[in-house]
Amino acid sequence: MNYCSHCAQPVRFAIPEGDDRPRYVCDACGTIHYQNPRIVAGTLPVSGSRVLLCRRAIAPRLGFWTLPAGFMENAETTVEAAARETLEEACAEVRIHGLYTLINLPHIDQVYMMFRADLEGSFDAGAESLEVALFEEHEIPWDELAFPTIERTLRHFFQDRREGAYPLHISDITAEDRERYFGSA
Amino acid sequence: MNYCSHCAQPVRFAIPEGDDRPRYVCDACGTIHYQNPRIVAGTLPVSGSRVLLCRRAIAPRLGFWTLPAGFMENAETTVEAAARETLEEACAEVRIHGLYTLINLPHIDQVYMMFRADLEGSFDAGAESLEVALFEEHEIPWDELAFPTIERTLRHFFQDRREGAYPLHISDITAEDRERYFGSA
Repeated sequence: MNYCSHCAQPVRFAIPEGDDRPRYVCDACGTIHYQNPRIVAGTLPVSGSRVLLCRRAIAPRLGFWTLPAGFMENAETTVEAAARETLEEACAEVRIHGLYTLINLPHIDQVYMMFRADLEGSFDAGAESLEVALFEEHEIPWDELAFPTIERTLRHFFQDRREGAYPLHISDITAEDRERYFGSA
Repeated sequence: MNYCSHCAQPVRFAIPEGDDRPRYVCDACGTIHYQNPRIVAGTLPVSGSRVLLCRRAIAPRLGFWTLPAGFMENAETTVEAAARETLEEACAEVRIHGLYTLINLPHIDQVYMMFRADLEGSFDAGAESLEVALFEEHEIPWDELAFPTIERTLRHFFQDRREGAYPLHISDITAEDRERYFGSA
């Protein structure tokens, strides 16, 4: 951020009076430009014993497999965002159950919210997917998953399925976790 | 938003190519300025049979009672945000349990995430509070609560306490709900 989006004058990165952390501040018009984490909402669509994955047609991680998920938009709910992303990426309608994983990624200012869901009807590759397919647990391409949030959500699911209960899992992924996950990628 | 925060040229509100909703777009440098919902994180601090409330020293809803909560900041987790807000508004340390209410407010682009917590030790009015106090259920100032999210979280809590279990409650508050709540305020 270089300029004030309200008045076009240059901004400073400084701690506003009465605040305790630096913000982009416009001395000309007084606007403080707050920046806050974004929510990534998605689903874990289940069909019988299989789960649906999408192979990414876009960067980052083009060609890797993911659960349908994306940035929540203004004017929608978290459940609507998760359903919309599933429709966009997998052309799939889902019946959403509870929130299943809540994963904080403070180093990139994101909060993942993944919902368990039942796949209802057909699916197909949306514009952002190369292909969409259903996988049994032993077929999951663990070495070709797009993000650590996706791997973690799937590992919780298969573990919980053996135990017959699906509690909400809240956890964090640190910069170090992420570096380890991506390796030299 | 009037100007591009990257290059200071005027922005247009238009649907970018390949997108399906309008964004603030800069034709000069090509930047698309996405806007996304913000998370409000907070706690329901419990001490024995009583819950902690803060009377707001700031607008909006100055003088009304609330649970400690506020906008999640970049570089923190949802749990850290909830604990920080509790420390700032009530000078109180808490031990946080699970996520308790997740409330979508799509008309104002907010998602509330309230965590159940045990109050640990003392409390006092922080800079944004006129006073902080503990309330038994029958003492809750229902007509002087600041926001519908706070009333809903408290009503769930007292109901669930009678039933002995505290599941996550996911719900929405619409513009109509909010108007009804605030009445002529």
